[in-house]
Amino acid sequence: MKIENYSLLTDLYQLTMGYAYWKNQKHNQNAVFNLYFRKSPFGGEYAICAGLDTVIDFIQNFHFNHSDLEYLASLKGNDGKPLFEKEYLDYLSNLKFTGDIYAVEEGDITFPNMPLIQLRAPLIQAQILETPLLTIVNFQTLIATKASRVVTAAQGDKVLEFGLRRAQGVDGALSASRAAYIGGVDGTSNVLSGKLWNIPVKGTHAHAWVMAFPSELEAFEAYADTMANNCTFLVDTYDTIEGVKNAIHIGLKLKKKGHQLAGIRLDSGDMTALSKEARKLLDDAGFTNASIVASNDLEEDIIFEMKKNGARIDVWAVGTHLVTARNQPALGGVYKLSAIQEGSEWKYRIKLSEQIIKISTPGILETYRFLDSHGKSIADGIVDTLQNYSGEFVHEKTFQNFHENQAAQKIPLLKKVFENGQLIYPRKNLEQIRTFSAQRKKMFNKELFDLYNPQPHFCGLEKNLFNLKSQMIKK
Amino acid sequence: MKIENYSLLTDLYQLTMGYAYWKNQKHNQNAVFNLYFRKSPFGGEYAICAGLDTVIDFIQNFHFNHSDLEYLASLKGNDGKPLFEKEYLDYLSNLKFTGDIYAVEEGDITFPNMPLIQLRAPLIQAQILETPLLTIVNFQTLIATKASRVVTAAQGDKVLEFGLRRAQGVDGALSASRAAYIGGVDGTSNVLSGKLWNIPVKGTHAHAWVMAFPSELEAFEAYADTMANNCTFLVDTYDTIEGVKNAIHIGLKLKKKGHQLAGIRLDSGDMTALSKEARKLLDDAGFTNASIVASNDLEEDIIFEMKKNGARIDVWAVGTHLVTARNQPALGGVYKLSAIQEGSEWKYRIKLSEQIIKISTPGILETYRFLDSHGKSIADGIVDTLQNYSGEFVHEKTFQNFHENQAAQKIPLLKKVFENGQLIYPRKNLEQIRTFSAQRKKMFNKELFDLYNPQPHFCGLEKNLFNLKSQMIKK
Repeated sequence: MKIENYSLLTDLYQLTMGYAYWKNQKHNQNAVFNLYFRKSPFGGEYAICAGLDTVIDFIQNFHFNHSDLEYLASLKGNDGKPLFEKEYLDYLSNLKFTGDIYAVEEGDITFPNMPLIQLRAPLIQAQILETPLLTIVNFQTLIATKASRVVTAAQGDKVLEFGLRRAQGVDGALSASRAAYIGGVDGTSNVLSGKLWNIPVKGTHAHAWVMAFPSELEAFEAYADTMANNCTFLVDTYDTIEGVKNAIHIGLKLKKKGHQLAGIRLDSGDMTALSKEARKLLDDAGFTNASIVASNDLEEDIIFEMKKNGARIDVWAVGTHLVTARNQPALGGVYKLSAIQEGSEWKYRIKLSEQIIKISTPGILETYRFLDSHGKSIADGIVDTLQNYSGEFVHEKTFQNFHENQAAQKIPLLKKVFENGQLIYPRKNLEQIRTFSAQRKKMFNKELFDLYNPQPHFCGLEKNLFNLKSQMIKK
Repeated sequence: MKIENYSLLTDLYQLTMGYAYWKNQKHNQNAVFNLYFRKSPFGGEYAICAGLDTVIDFIQNFHFNHSDLEYLASLKGNDGKPLFEKEYLDYLSNLKFTGDIYAVEEGDITFPNMPLIQLRAPLIQAQILETPLLTIVNFQTLIATKASRVVTAAQGDKVLEFGLRRAQGVDGALSASRAAYIGGVDGTSNVLSGKLWNIPVKGTHAHAWVMAFPSELEAFEAYADTMANNCTFLVDTYDTIEGVKNAIHIGLKLKKKGHQLAGIRLDSGDMTALSKEARKLLDDAGFTNASIVASNDLEEDIIFEMKKNGARIDVWAVGTHLVTARNQPALGGVYKLSAIQEGSEWKYRIKLSEQIIKISTPGILETYRFLDSHGKSIADGIVDTLQNYSGEFVHEKTFQNFHENQAAQKIPLLKKVFENGQLIYPRKNLEQIRTFSAQRKKMFNKELFDLYNPQPHFCGLEKNLFNLKSQMIKK
């Protein structure tokens, strides 16, 4: 668990390529790399950027310490000789990030092929940082987007992230809490996430609490003695409706003492039917303010269906499906070289593939969002700063066109985060990021966020860039 | 990234229940909790235990430090008053683990409803540790099992874990490397995992390397200059077969200088056909020892199919599907109270459910493996130490019987790891755990590990325990 330094969190080939760049005197050639995804996750039409603040931490702490270098010195090649020569390891011992990083702000809405992060840096630095940046941004962006979908399904009800026990490891849980909060959930069960990022922490009690007492009623009463104003009783340990009645029984006792029953939690059975029955029992007993919390393998489509069927749930506690993005547990973001400096000249670079979707975009890219006079986004566009700017954009699949004179306003999406290795971006706390994300969502038509058959958003290449890319593919 | 202490990595409700146990003077009641899963993952018939060594670290470091307690003191209830009183936080400040832990050894083969970890500890300690233990064991057991399936598919070929960039966060990657190595993979691309656990680290080079040079041939030549005996060329940046020819061209140059071409890597296209063509080209040029590595979204069924179709792959580099267990990204292990001490008497506890599979097993449980005279496992059994032992076991679904007189040998599966809070188990390094796992696999029929229609293994409850559980369900 105790790791002094995460800088070795990279693929071995980054360090062997780094070695070969260094031996070939190419390591300090400036290069432009873009981190982006090719397809929106979960069959949707958007993603929510997340992970930048973690990336900033990573970059600021990036250095190889003595034990890292000792380990690298111990590695052998196929011939049994050291994989790396000492001079290279000496070079690595002084390596820090000295380049520029541009990034879409955390919480912003983004689309396929738009750079989320762009490095303009010496080749060796950009290469070694490829893997950790992908690890961080792929996962957090995935979960922020998943959370946004779950929140959409809940139609204004509260959503809590309860996934710690089923998460993919310690950071699978922590990063998921962070990203889910950006994506719009209202709290987490994970206390450490609460401490780290000031996310509201929430919880009820477990079946074990009830089972530790001779009867459910005794268990509820004992819990109420301690948690008078924070009692959400889990009612399904033995029989759900009996459990609701026991909760009401204790709720009435609490009331006499001037306290409030916070609510109940359902965790099994036909929760739509049970929630209606429980709501009626609670209301009839005067507990109209008591919340009904639902848990048990909830997922966006289940929530959507339950709400359609009139479930009376106030709070959705979502675990496994949210923190592992079970229906698509990886984003598949990539990191591609788009330009490299030779002498003072920039050379375009493109990664070809038989699959059109896998072909990368060359250039030193910038991205813009075009708004109409009401501040609604009508198009996003990718521009190569080395080309003349036409104001016209072409969609790569549909060949539809958009011209900036259709827009009232153009806003750049990439902010400069590091300049010559120095952080120049004002970091935001998680609450600010979450608020920013909610504001950015409002820039788009509601239909973009629909769970089923969402409305696509226009996103195209500036015409001269589009033509350049087409020519490079033909060649 | 810098977290001093992971002890708050738990669900809030564990701490509120802990508070209520403490207020009700129940916190030091001894309790037995079992961590187990209900259904083998991936449609298989087994799982490979992993995570114990990480659990040991967690337990040994378990304590709430000053900043943890300050954070807990800052939490408010629904009435705006502090959630916890100061005396409880003072109590927590001195809390350490003082109980016993039994566990199946890492790498062993296990089955549904068999305890992987068992705590016999004061109620409050067992409760707070529930969540982190589930997080650690669920994920590592999932990935060790997934790795075992991928290794089965590869039928003796080498398998490498290349998943870092698509893993679920930093520890999603690190824990996955560790667990995958236990499950039988031969190495990882993740350098930090290599450093932490001495896992062999492997790699080739990326498309970016090729794209950083004017031509593929120049890129290969430059790489060979540095990595003379460690050259596995990625051949699909522009055209795979041309790439193979370029690799051979440079391979011949290497040969003249007394070096060996290590191999090539295929990363796109019809890799079965391409591998056959590449193998022929390599063999014809005298590179019969050069390996063909395959990558690109590989998965157990794809490997199985490619091998059936005669693919000439020597090394399978598996990423996303392995480290996220994409086809089932969570194990769904649970942690249930099975007995609690009242005074000097142990009381049985059972969690009921309308779903039979969700009903827990009561008692102070032990588990055994029964071997025939050839040392092959013929049955596993769960025993309650509070009951008379009949030697007879009943399968909970099929009601089939097994009697220990059918066996030549009986071995206990749970080892005592902590006694009165002290570690008494001799920790093993990862290589030893991996070797142990391979040995344990040999105890079972090969058919247990089949990817499709595997042979189930008998696993039952000792007859008196079976009867007790049946009676408790009826009641």
